Amino acid sequence: MKKTACRNAFYAQSGGVTAVINATAAGVIETARAHKSRIGKVYAGRNGIIGALTEDLIDTSRESARAIAALKHTPAGAFGSCRYKLKGLDENRAQYQRLIDVFRAHDIGYFFYNGGNDSADTCLKVSQIAQRLGYPLAALHLPKTVDNDLAVTDNCPGFGSVAKYVATSMREAAFDVASMARTSTKVFVLEVMGRHAGWITAAVGMAEDAGTPIPLVLLFPEIAFDETKFLAAVDDRVKRFGYCCIGVSEGVKNAQGRLMAEAGTQDAFGHAQLGGAGPLIAKLVNDRFGYKYHWAVADYLQRAARHLASKTDVAHAYAVGKAAVLFALAGHHGVMTAIERTSDKPYRWKIAIAPLDKVANVEKMLPRDYITKDGFGITAKARGYLAPLIRGEDFPPFRDGLPQYIRLKNVAVPKKLATGFVI
Amino acid sequence: MKKTACRNAFYAQSGGVTAVINATAAGVIETARAHKSRIGKVYAGRNGIIGALTEDLIDTSRESARAIAALKHTPAGAFGSCRYKLKGLDENRAQYQRLIDVFRAHDIGYFFYNGGNDSADTCLKVSQIAQRLGYPLAALHLPKTVDNDLAVTDNCPGFGSVAKYVATSMREAAFDVASMARTSTKVFVLEVMGRHAGWITAAVGMAEDAGTPIPLVLLFPEIAFDETKFLAAVDDRVKRFGYCCIGVSEGVKNAQGRLMAEAGTQDAFGHAQLGGAGPLIAKLVNDRFGYKYHWAVADYLQRAARHLASKTDVAHAYAVGKAAVLFALAGHHGVMTAIERTSDKPYRWKIAIAPLDKVANVEKMLPRDYITKDGFGITAKARGYLAPLIRGEDFPPFRDGLPQYIRLKNVAVPKKLATGFVI
Repeated sequence: MKKTACRNAFYAQSGGVTAVINATAAGVIETARAHKSRIGKVYAGRNGIIGALTEDLIDTSRESARAIAALKHTPAGAFGSCRYKLKGLDENRAQYQRLIDVFRAHDIGYFFYNGGNDSADTCLKVSQIAQRLGYPLAALHLPKTVDNDLAVTDNCPGFGSVAKYVATSMREAAFDVASMARTSTKVFVLEVMGRHAGWITAAVGMAEDAGTPIPLVLLFPEIAFDETKFLAAVDDRVKRFGYCCIGVSEGVKNAQGRLMAEAGTQDAFGHAQLGGAGPLIAKLVNDRFGYKYHWAVADYLQRAARHLASKTDVAHAYAVGKAAVLFALAGHHGVMTAIERTSDKPYRWKIAIAPLDKVANVEKMLPRDYITKDGFGITAKARGYLAPLIRGEDFPPFRDGLPQYIRLKNVAVPKKLATGFVI
Repeated sequence: MKKTACRNAFYAQSGGVTAVINATAAGVIETARAHKSRIGKVYAGRNGIIGALTEDLIDTSRESARAIAALKHTPAGAFGSCRYKLKGLDENRAQYQRLIDVFRAHDIGYFFYNGGNDSADTCLKVSQIAQRLGYPLAALHLPKTVDNDLAVTDNCPGFGSVAKYVATSMREAAFDVASMARTSTKVFVLEVMGRHAGWITAAVGMAEDAGTPIPLVLLFPEIAFDETKFLAAVDDRVKRFGYCCIGVSEGVKNAQGRLMAEAGTQDAFGHAQLGGAGPLIAKLVNDRFGYKYHWAVADYLQRAARHLASKTDVAHAYAVGKAAVLFALAGHHGVMTAIERTSDKPYRWKIAIAPLDKVANVEKMLPRDYITKDGFGITAKARGYLAPLIRGEDFPPFRDGLPQYIRLKNVAVPKKLATGFVI
């Protein structure tokens, strides 16, 4: 690829946001600012790739160093995200052509796309079309997803913090239920995210350890729901310990592969919109045994909980952003910055380069040997994997009792193209 | 009341537990230990008052100073709580007689009962029966309830931490929704506790402040639900800001006073078991406008979240326990330790004495002038009241990424009575 003296960069956030995706943004912007001779301005897409298509670019150079640094402790997507999947190259070449037109108009030589496996696919296609059209563009993907289901990378920024949140929350709730179980609540259900892959459900299992045993039952999306076995497992815990805590994935499925709880609506990617597995499971237990129950659905609370972020996760998130810029400057393109675990004890990691075609549209499920034989718990192997990811605290600054999160100015870059684009 | 040289104390936790009720236990036990010439041992009721009735007492003297200190950062009820309401004196004199029998057998001269308005009533009755029977007993009530609905006291230990949790959670979720609203979620609903009184719902309003505006709509249990007005308020926010965050009390009622969501079951006190107002409200908005929505039900997570406790709340909780012991030693009985606000700016408070008959069975609702005229928000007066209660952080110790909470040994005191008692 031709190297140009100094070109601008485009950065965008895609799909469901996380507690630490803005740390990745900070990694990109701060590293770009440190290389002013090579990278001019970093333009962010307002609402992700839609910002590129509609030429709605945000000039991040208008933000102070302090504001950019504050992104490291601010949850969600500071520039707006979107659920908008570009079609195939043959199906909608106009979309890709438009992207290149916008990039050309703003002299964008770097495309940093921060998302999950859907956006890895988009990034790959953008890289390909740029090459085909002879437009010099370093397109790199930066991993992000609470689902932790991206291939190649050891883990995904965003997951460690959700893992810490659900493990902490279940531990706290378990102390509560244990207090109440004698005359009141005996069964507590926490529904967690993770549409297809059970990584977050597995993290609920970290609520207990040798020093803090908790009678847990976990329901993974990878394990077909067996009502008889499940009810027996719950009753066993209640009889032996007086109470039972259940962690259930929003995507738990029956033996026929049907979702236990399906709201019937779909998001823009054609995924079913879920929510409701928790109350459903709680009611099932109550119907069978009459045990008093409580249930919680953490929903966005789990992925937005920057107040309880994992320090490891924040470090990963920043690093994948920083490394993407450095890799791009070194001439890489069509790749993803991946986290590589080089040692478990002590935990050591580095940023590696992953080819995008190995990441795009692939979902990494929880390995079967991370789940206990009975299907209701996690193994030592899972614990070894999860332990370092939730380690360390990185509390945001608080003022008047509340975390202080930054809202950027998000000043628009003047448009240069005569034509608009309808989304 | 006759003062005896050195007698034992009984302490019990009642009703729904909180993130800081164990701090009150620590206040009682540490203060009693500092007055060994007057108070012998502190016996805790295993599972609240049931422990007293069944002579199932826990010898807290078997716990180290370090373990008791760790109660200050451990959520839920370390000795077990219960939902068990004693009947009226005339209806079930045997229960009260039994309590006195157990107290006499273990030379208990101090009765410290830590709970809400139901247990304030029990404490009052225990005080009265002791006097009637000529048994010297200093019965004191120590306030505790996330619902914040106790009379006389400015606020209730447990509430400040829930308030901080729901305000933080809604702020974080609002950042998330704002990121997603362009193409996805436009409406987010958080269901919070507070059966009859809207204090926790009001605390959701603290998510926003001058520096961090959030398009909020709050649904209080004190304000009859008006579907037309509500839907108009939500649509207004979505149209003006692109999204809307809704905080809804589990106890929101329609114009006829019927609960919007009623599970149909009741707890041991005859209260309806709630849960479901959140999803119901979300669906209502979706049915009318088609806006994509997400909802969360925090349930026990909100009241167990010691990781995000309010420092002010922890201080209050400890102080009501400590003061109860000191008041008892000074000869007070039949009273509650109350928090008195002596100054708003700077916030100052002290522990006062409240007569139990002014507290028992009274519910303190959110004043109408804490709610905006339209019924969907909180006023400056509410903010002034709530602000100091959520102030300050008091993070528990973390190890391997998770908060470290203490589990006591809870060694039983040998029984002395020949007869048991059936609950």
